[in-house]
Amino acid sequence: MTPISLSIYDTTLRDGAQREGISFSVEDKIRIARELDRLGIPFIEGGWPGANPKDVQFFWHLKEQPLSQAEIVAFCFTRRPGKTAATDPMLQPILAAGTKWITIVGKSWDLHVTEGLQTTLDENLAMIQDTITYLRSHDRQVIYDAEHWFDGYKHNREYALATLKSAIAAGAEWITLCDTNGGTLPHEIEQIVRDVRNAVGDVKIGIHPHNDCDLAVANAIAAVNAGATMVQGTINGYGERCGNANLCSVIPNLQLKLGYDCLPAEQLATLAQVSRIVSEVANLAPDDHAAFVGLSAFAHKGGLHVSAVQRNPITYEHLQPELVGNGRRIVISEQAGISNILAKAKSLGFNLDRQDPTCREILESLKHLEQDGYQFEAAEASFELLIRQALGERNAPFEVRGFQVHYDMMAEAAPTHSYCGRARSLATVKVAIAGKEILEAAEGNGPVSALDAALRKALITVYPEIETFYLTDYKVRILDGAAGTSAKTRVLVESSNGVQRWATVGVSGNILEASYQAVVESLEYGLLLQQRAQSPLPSRLLA
Amino acid sequence: MTPISLSIYDTTLRDGAQREGISFSVEDKIRIARELDRLGIPFIEGGWPGANPKDVQFFWHLKEQPLSQAEIVAFCFTRRPGKTAATDPMLQPILAAGTKWITIVGKSWDLHVTEGLQTTLDENLAMIQDTITYLRSHDRQVIYDAEHWFDGYKHNREYALATLKSAIAAGAEWITLCDTNGGTLPHEIEQIVRDVRNAVGDVKIGIHPHNDCDLAVANAIAAVNAGATMVQGTINGYGERCGNANLCSVIPNLQLKLGYDCLPAEQLATLAQVSRIVSEVANLAPDDHAAFVGLSAFAHKGGLHVSAVQRNPITYEHLQPELVGNGRRIVISEQAGISNILAKAKSLGFNLDRQDPTCREILESLKHLEQDGYQFEAAEASFELLIRQALGERNAPFEVRGFQVHYDMMAEAAPTHSYCGRARSLATVKVAIAGKEILEAAEGNGPVSALDAALRKALITVYPEIETFYLTDYKVRILDGAAGTSAKTRVLVESSNGVQRWATVGVSGNILEASYQAVVESLEYGLLLQQRAQSPLPSRLLA
Repeated sequence: MTPISLSIYDTTLRDGAQREGISFSVEDKIRIARELDRLGIPFIEGGWPGANPKDVQFFWHLKEQPLSQAEIVAFCFTRRPGKTAATDPMLQPILAAGTKWITIVGKSWDLHVTEGLQTTLDENLAMIQDTITYLRSHDRQVIYDAEHWFDGYKHNREYALATLKSAIAAGAEWITLCDTNGGTLPHEIEQIVRDVRNAVGDVKIGIHPHNDCDLAVANAIAAVNAGATMVQGTINGYGERCGNANLCSVIPNLQLKLGYDCLPAEQLATLAQVSRIVSEVANLAPDDHAAFVGLSAFAHKGGLHVSAVQRNPITYEHLQPELVGNGRRIVISEQAGISNILAKAKSLGFNLDRQDPTCREILESLKHLEQDGYQFEAAEASFELLIRQALGERNAPFEVRGFQVHYDMMAEAAPTHSYCGRARSLATVKVAIAGKEILEAAEGNGPVSALDAALRKALITVYPEIETFYLTDYKVRILDGAAGTSAKTRVLVESSNGVQRWATVGVSGNILEASYQAVVESLEYGLLLQQRAQSPLPSRLLA
Repeated sequence: MTPISLSIYDTTLRDGAQREGISFSVEDKIRIARELDRLGIPFIEGGWPGANPKDVQFFWHLKEQPLSQAEIVAFCFTRRPGKTAATDPMLQPILAAGTKWITIVGKSWDLHVTEGLQTTLDENLAMIQDTITYLRSHDRQVIYDAEHWFDGYKHNREYALATLKSAIAAGAEWITLCDTNGGTLPHEIEQIVRDVRNAVGDVKIGIHPHNDCDLAVANAIAAVNAGATMVQGTINGYGERCGNANLCSVIPNLQLKLGYDCLPAEQLATLAQVSRIVSEVANLAPDDHAAFVGLSAFAHKGGLHVSAVQRNPITYEHLQPELVGNGRRIVISEQAGISNILAKAKSLGFNLDRQDPTCREILESLKHLEQDGYQFEAAEASFELLIRQALGERNAPFEVRGFQVHYDMMAEAAPTHSYCGRARSLATVKVAIAGKEILEAAEGNGPVSALDAALRKALITVYPEIETFYLTDYKVRILDGAAGTSAKTRVLVESSNGVQRWATVGVSGNILEASYQAVVESLEYGLLLQQRAQSPLPSRLLA
């Protein structure tokens, strides 16, 4: 039996961008569109051309350099009351965007027509029909998004159905039912979608759920069960309030659990990567606990458990993580037994033996460090350095012999809201490379950037590749809030060389020291990666 | 019709604590247990007495000072193979914990019995039956958690059912079906729960879903639809991997959408508060986008939308936010209009008039500051100072004229993992009180604590109440990760005087300055609260 094919419709760039804190540039939007295209998403809603210059530019760019497979979709409201579609200037930029597909959103709920649009129920039907007819006459294919559909249906079923019939009569190819306020439950969705299918006849149905009841994924599945063949959602579930249906959960559920056909299998196997790229472009921390794609989605703690999962993965994993581009992760924590250390070391490429006393050594220093506040769960580069240290495989490319930081705004204005921070920090570092001491000083906006700058300045002549390293994230966590400003501080630094990413950790009662530890290890690890790329594996590494 | 009553079973303290990054102290556990008790949760799983000293201590404490209504439940595995329950030392601390209710978890899946426990299928049945019989003979009531139930059922329905029958025969009062790997979909849950009810006869059924498919809440609802009357989950959905069923979503859905009876309405109206307290105790950032209880769950942006929602909330809100202790939030953001400012100011106690030019002034400085990276959503004390400033009601109790920070570990060992941070930071501050300059210096573990100490030293002779202020939280957020260590930094400081709590914000490219702004405003606001407690309200404050 051929699996039923579903059309995934991504609206990360439009509805997803409504999330508080997201602000995509044109370049951001293009980067995400290309990632979604590569992932095999067939419909990508790009924005509302005309609503702002950014969206116009975005569509313009994609007209010049089209996506390889996906349809890029322009989004717009129905024409305004009391005009015709042909004379409503709002629709001209939509046509000018040059897409084959256009999504038109219209009102389904009588209350929104009379109170929101302040027009008559009949005029709203005319607006839907006229707008779609006009776009069809310009050879566009139309997806009709029925806004507030489920609430409208519950308040006035007949009218809500009439809006759909207007859209269908005008030639809409898909009718998407939107749960705009996100308050509908799965059993209602299923029943209402079935009723719509009976009432409006043979048209393709889509679903657009919001997550206000924490049920958007279940609602998407419920609609598909009832015959919907398009699901609209966003990567990572981004969207206003509680977000949209998370495509990173919807797609694996539909394809891997229910047997529908959404994406080619080899492209589905890059889903976790796309999720991370999108969160990076959105500049939001990825949700480590996200289903399927989160860093912790296939994480295992505890010794017994870990050995069992390695023997027989299906006993502890509901899915093979590689199918969605994720991987099994052995959590390094103080509860860890020797087998966790072995498994972790192995995944890093070290073939440790259980009898090796180094194992116990690593375990001991791990426990000691975790009691001090270190956490290696999110800082695997630091953990690798720890293992290397124990194995005698850590050849530190430089040694820090000391540093000083100074900050003075004694002479300047006091720091208030209006103060713009002209006072800069000064850092001095002393490092030794192969026994030779180098003393350097540098300024920075803050004490940590000054330290970072001084350190790079000291190292770059010997290690020019440091030029390509940059910090992608810098997180500070106060470990004991109650201790206030003298609390222990854990700093996580994430770095990149443009190709790989790695994370390091530092802990201290002094934020400068904690940052420094993480920055120093970050540079050391970056150099290690570089060196590994150029030379054969050391003796104790796996072939 | 009387609504059907459901039993909510919270396992935040046991299964929830499995989440990477959570590590509850005994005091944390007690605090959470008391909050859950106040919320009206009938069953609170407290941990596994005997597994670690912390849990023994926790149960001991609650025996001395019991909860007011909730049953505190001890958790344990079935006895070990080849022993008897009476002779298995593991069960003694469980009885010693002195709870009325005990949850016993046992194996349902044949594979886990033979591969995991390495025992026979029959011995597993005996383990279940013997353990429960033993506890019943000591007058305990037993909830039987059937681990890996749904996977076990799919692999070997007959055996899985036999495990339940053993538990029932031994006198278990509830049978909880666990979706331990979280891979089961709602329609399967519903169908299997129905089958169990038919197969095992009249026993109370519970459900314990995990969120690996992003469907835990839907799965809880599906089980209840099929007749389950207990739902096990955690506050904020904390738990291993992708977490457990989030009670903050489960409860409102079941009670407010489906009409079941879970909690007294007035206690349900504190749910959002409990969610925040638990995330605070867990020291995890709250999920602003969480359904029902998140800060953004009922957030509205944009002027038109805001006036529409105020006119007729049901058009844009699926639920009255107050029912779950949340509130409609007008996003204080640069898109904010005057009416947003008025609403916000009123909630702070200022009776501003729309015509007042101060309104526009506040709006302008707000826009300016938000562009700079400030966020007042979580720093209402700073926002109040901003409003007071505009109203001419901000009488700064001191003025900072400058500060210096110095840190030197040039002469010491380099900061490595083994380095213990003996080098201390030195700060010098110059403040003026009523025109009189005071210069003070102090040391601290880190630069911020040194600054804090110097500042307190300078102020305390004039304002001895500062002695009672302490910082309860200090959060650092890097605003532009990509800019690495020279990124703009936002610091949030939460302070307390033992009675009240307040939060302030600072932003700068320099973490020292950002921290300093927040600390200075924190001290200013603390003094303001003190003064307010002692004197009548200023003229423009509401009565």
